[in-house]
Amino acid sequence: MAGSGFGTLFRVTTWGESHGYGIGAVVDGCPAGLPMDEEYIQQYLDRRKPGGRAFSTPRREEDKVRILSGCFEGRTTGTPISLMIENKDQHSADYGELANAWRPGHADFGFDSKYGFRDYRGGGRSSGRETAARVAAGAIAARMLSEKGIHVQAWVSAIGPYICDASRFDPDEIMRNPFAMPDADAAREAEAYLTRLREEQDSTGSEVTCIVKGLPAGIGEPVFDKLDARLAQAVFSIGAVKAVEIGDGKAVVSSRGSENNDPFRVQDGRVVCTSNHAGGILGGISTGADILLRASFKPTPSIFREQKTVTKDLKETDLSIRGRHDPVIGPRAAVVVEMMTALTVADLYLMAETGRLDQI
Amino acid sequence: MAGSGFGTLFRVTTWGESHGYGIGAVVDGCPAGLPMDEEYIQQYLDRRKPGGRAFSTPRREEDKVRILSGCFEGRTTGTPISLMIENKDQHSADYGELANAWRPGHADFGFDSKYGFRDYRGGGRSSGRETAARVAAGAIAARMLSEKGIHVQAWVSAIGPYICDASRFDPDEIMRNPFAMPDADAAREAEAYLTRLREEQDSTGSEVTCIVKGLPAGIGEPVFDKLDARLAQAVFSIGAVKAVEIGDGKAVVSSRGSENNDPFRVQDGRVVCTSNHAGGILGGISTGADILLRASFKPTPSIFREQKTVTKDLKETDLSIRGRHDPVIGPRAAVVVEMMTALTVADLYLMAETGRLDQI
Amino acid sequence: MAGSGFGTLFRVTTWGESHGYGIGAVVDGCPAGLPMDEEYIQQYLDRRKPGGRAFSTPRREEDKVRILSGCFEGRTTGTPISLMIENKDQHSADYGELANAWRPGHADFGFDSKYGFRDYRGGGRSSGRETAARVAAGAIAARMLSEKGIHVQAWVSAIGPYICDASRFDPDEIMRNPFAMPDADAAREAEAYLTRLREEQDSTGSEVTCIVKGLPAGIGEPVFDKLDARLAQAVFSIGAVKAVEIGDGKAVVSSRGSENNDPFRVQDGRVVCTSNHAGGILGGISTGADILLRASFKPTPSIFREQKTVTKDLKETDLSIRGRHDPVIGPRAAVVVEMMTALTVADLYLMAETGRLDQI
Amino acid sequence: MAGSGFGTLFRVTTWGESHGYGIGAVVDGCPAGLPMDEEYIQQYLDRRKPGGRAFSTPRREEDKVRILSGCFEGRTTGTPISLMIENKDQHSADYGELANAWRPGHADFGFDSKYGFRDYRGGGRSSGRETAARVAAGAIAARMLSEKGIHVQAWVSAIGPYICDASRFDPDEIMRNPFAMPDADAAREAEAYLTRLREEQDSTGSEVTCIVKGLPAGIGEPVFDKLDARLAQAVFSIGAVKAVEIGDGKAVVSSRGSENNDPFRVQDGRVVCTSNHAGGILGGISTGADILLRASFKPTPSIFREQKTVTKDLKETDLSIRGRHDPVIGPRAAVVVEMMTALTVADLYLMAETGRLDQI
Repeated sequence: MAGSGFGTLFRVTTWGESHGYGIGAVVDGCPAGLPMDEEYIQQYLDRRKPGGRAFSTPRREEDKVRILSGCFEGRTTGTPISLMIENKDQHSADYGELANAWRPGHADFGFDSKYGFRDYRGGGRSSGRETAARVAAGAIAARMLSEKGIHVQAWVSAIGPYICDASRFDPDEIMRNPFAMPDADAAREAEAYLTRLREEQDSTGSEVTCIVKGLPAGIGEPVFDKLDARLAQAVFSIGAVKAVEIGDGKAVVSSRGSENNDPFRVQDGRVVCTSNHAGGILGGISTGADILLRASFKPTPSIFREQKTVTKDLKETDLSIRGRHDPVIGPRAAVVVEMMTALTVADLYLMAETGRLDQI
Repeated sequence: MAGSGFGTLFRVTTWGESHGYGIGAVVDGCPAGLPMDEEYIQQYLDRRKPGGRAFSTPRREEDKVRILSGCFEGRTTGTPISLMIENKDQHSADYGELANAWRPGHADFGFDSKYGFRDYRGGGRSSGRETAARVAAGAIAARMLSEKGIHVQAWVSAIGPYICDASRFDPDEIMRNPFAMPDADAAREAEAYLTRLREEQDSTGSEVTCIVKGLPAGIGEPVFDKLDARLAQAVFSIGAVKAVEIGDGKAVVSSRGSENNDPFRVQDGRVVCTSNHAGGILGGISTGADILLRASFKPTPSIFREQKTVTKDLKETDLSIRGRHDPVIGPRAAVVVEMMTALTVADLYLMAETGRLDQI
Repeated sequence: MAGSGFGTLFRVTTWGESHGYGIGAVVDGCPAGLPMDEEYIQQYLDRRKPGGRAFSTPRREEDKVRILSGCFEGRTTGTPISLMIENKDQHSADYGELANAWRPGHADFGFDSKYGFRDYRGGGRSSGRETAARVAAGAIAARMLSEKGIHVQAWVSAIGPYICDASRFDPDEIMRNPFAMPDADAAREAEAYLTRLREEQDSTGSEVTCIVKGLPAGIGEPVFDKLDARLAQAVFSIGAVKAVEIGDGKAVVSSRGSENNDPFRVQDGRVVCTSNHAGGILGGISTGADILLRASFKPTPSIFREQKTVTKDLKETDLSIRGRHDPVIGPRAAVVVEMMTALTVADLYLMAETGRLDQI
Repeated sequence: MAGSGFGTLFRVTTWGESHGYGIGAVVDGCPAGLPMDEEYIQQYLDRRKPGGRAFSTPRREEDKVRILSGCFEGRTTGTPISLMIENKDQHSADYGELANAWRPGHADFGFDSKYGFRDYRGGGRSSGRETAARVAAGAIAARMLSEKGIHVQAWVSAIGPYICDASRFDPDEIMRNPFAMPDADAAREAEAYLTRLREEQDSTGSEVTCIVKGLPAGIGEPVFDKLDARLAQAVFSIGAVKAVEIGDGKAVVSSRGSENNDPFRVQDGRVVCTSNHAGGILGGISTGADILLRASFKPTPSIFREQKTVTKDLKETDLSIRGRHDPVIGPRAAVVVEMMTALTVADLYLMAETGRLDQI
């Protein structure tokens, strides 16, 4: 189980490299009876698609998903759902020299150290392309959650120094601008910044924020499978993530208990928190408040500038990476964060179904 | 598997509540032949012990660990190692009223939502006391790693606004001052700050930093069981953690690729990175550089000030928490971060043993 | 995870050797709210107890179970239930020479090959004593099942050539005679046979039959976690089992489809099978009919006769095993089969709770 | 994780139904560097293929396997190996009436009870066709084992009352006759018997025997993941298996310890057993002797004779199954037993790699 599977009850296993036949995922444990078709999944994949947006790689991946099993007459049957996306438009030639020199900021050196050799075309298994399989699988989790009134949404909250302003938050903007930012002004500034970076053959970091609405209290297991612990694993399993925060996140270090504790009150006969510093999770278990999560993405490591590196025969060299690369990761990764969140919540939601004798 | 187990090959399962008979852990999968005795484990538990340090709770837990199985003639046998720590000096009476009102910032409300009822004495399973079992188990992982030349160390890098200065880093200071801080000046400032907070019946957040030295390149699995993803789950599974960062962490958002990529060079016939923004992990796999990890801990939620909350019969009320509580979590939690890191690295280290045909 | 854990949702981890401090089990995933106390568990342990019955080893193990965690005010809390049985009355001296020569029919040689050394006292981890921990854990599963109207019972159906006759089946006999046989005549014959074997310093094989009543249709997962597949693993994990059969078992080889297929009919508005060759399982999923399972136990390998074997320094030798050993395994193992069946069914019962969208 | 995955380190996940787009498997955890191509896998699939042999269904499944990922330049890369076999030559129309009436001896009723509805075409997920995916995955395990000098082989040892005679055992016969029987005489008798059964619109049970040669001592985990326990799960997970035996199997019930214990001797400086009643496993761990396993298969449940059953609206009815069905399961299932054995042994072989400190 070399780590290509995630989840206990709602379990996804992904496969595939950027330059082989294709990529895919098998979802085992999706409950029977969920309405499902390829169109539903495709809309999530389209949000990840490059080429549809300015400032993302011109490579035209069609990313058409096919459901190969597990659905019958428009509904899931409870058996494994196999999803496949064929690879198109591959230019392996572009990657030829990467067989010899390890790209800085990439997994190449680690793979060679681990396995002795690797599929060097386009990053192979460590390519961002692998995340398309997760998005396809995550769409099924998102559908299951939405049937239960639980909704997950992610967006880009910062690109380099340009940070979305909460006061200008417009949910429709997320799908409208090419950066998945909910603040049109920030998106405009980010655009100018990215143009400059392109010219400078450089790239920038970014931040993705994700929210889960409608999750009832009581989801998450108390110790190692805390909701926040599993979310952190899920989101950190996306390449390029270097930090995950829940609720106030890193700001808690300089906070005080009297500020940070969210008071409980009663509203319409339900227990609510009147603030949400905790991001909806206490002791690893949901409180019924919105789940708030942020992920910090490092700058795209593939930059056109010359970089110092080493070849397989341990000679120092300078490497210029060619090919097609986005100067920022967040805009295409936002839906990946959203889908990894959906997969995690779906799994722990099912797990919570078996926690009480009076409910089984 | 309600989440009380962690790890695939080096697997720990913890049990116990703060006010029952005791707490414990079962370690399954520790290789046979590792030297082990209770004294070795005890030294780690002593670092977590309250009462030994100023500004930590005066409750005198002895926390004496016993090895109940899995060792014979001073070595591990390959069979499960059962560890137990009896609970002493419990004052359940102190916790009586907590049966009725949910403490803000605590897991109480989530547990009641999830299970219908809970052991309300001292937080029950969600008590920080559960982490003593992890420390005991982690000590075994740390011993296994040290036999392979891998060393893990954690310390407190910030208490509220008081941050350790890298230029004053003194490793011996970590064991010397009551705050596990490697900077004696910062420790003095933190002490004054905590005195003030005590008077104000308040608490503060803190930050723990952890480093792994000597880990070879090639450890970590490429997709969901990335080294950083598993570390994030491990550290977020410690109550009160609200952010985990690897390498530059959150700072990558405003960084550029040209700064953030660590160049590869050759040194003494080995591949090295000349900087370490990545914190020793690329694509989820170790590069041979030091692993760098930071965890942000929220302020202790148990404060003596009155707080607004709700009772089980949904009446709004004010709650004053009594009992013994540290005004900051980091100093006792540092060894917990260290041990969760050791458990994670030990597990993925064993996993990597089976990755190549020429090595099995 | 060196195989000391079993189950996905209702998960048991056992620990301990025959001659260490004690043995135990941690049950993770038992739903909250189940009535539970030590007396309930003890009655199952007492059925496994030696010394209480003629023809079982005179060693007086008290086997008193303690619940160390996971229960509060007489009910399970949903958190791990830690169970411990201290070892008493150990005579390690008896086992001294076993450190050097491998006992035929025992796991000694395998352990030494695997781990390089072993705890040689009384079989260590491979001792039948380990199964007491499973019985304690299984009692919790059995209680959960009985709350749902599901009842598991096992008995000895054959000792050597003496086979219980279905026409003389008397359920009360199972608890009455020392061999757990439901046929008093067969029990008498077995007794005479065992007396003879004692004199001849020999032992005999036996068969245990287990039935599950009240299990609804639809339990079991379709492929690798078929109900029968998981039962087979569970029962084969008991040392000395050499065959597991479901329904007609081995007899199906010479059967015909027209005989073997159980016809479906409608009875009181429910679908029933008018015969039960399948033993209540088709395609790995329960049909609502009784689950029927049989396990074949080899003769006790510890016999007093001299046997040919080899010492650690590869010298051939003759070995006479001393100490206390039953001449037949089934009578004490019946409750172990029953409890492993209960653990398996409980786990798959919980798993089935998450199979349909309209039920979650 | 609804049971479509098997194995901890060498893990296979299967997907697909008999009448959808196709079936497949994902193998995660195969070590890097193993030579692999489609031809190698195909030879195992061809042994399972119907139509190539008399007395097997005339349906012409081509069963051409494709490797979609995880191999590069003729070797495995350590990343998931995705295998796919497209479904051809489906006649869903044949199965139309099966939507309404539950076939006796089949999983239909269980699936409907479990999931509320099912893909009724040809058995859907419970079809024997699913095992083709296991054979493809198992071929990779078999290749890994053969690189380590471990060889697995299975054959049909009985069809109805016609049992292969050990004295006529001819390994070449297994691939030569249409029944995979190593005894040409028994194969001839079986042929005549099957002709008669065809005329009588009936079917027969059968037995498959499997042997593992070259497995070193020390493989298998001591408690729940015993080598025999995991083999039993693996083989029982093949539909229609009703008994699994190791070594002497069911015959141990009437055996004596003095006969059943295999004496240890020294031969060419190695420890050997001079008999093999145990089938190469003691206490769940291999002894270095051949692993011997037998599986009893029930008669094919699909018979052309009219059978009593019930429709979905709970009306009693008579059902005649049409379509193409073998009158005996063993001949096509032998390679499935072989491959499930290979998958199990490969997984526990890798697991044993991490058992000793001096070997990691």
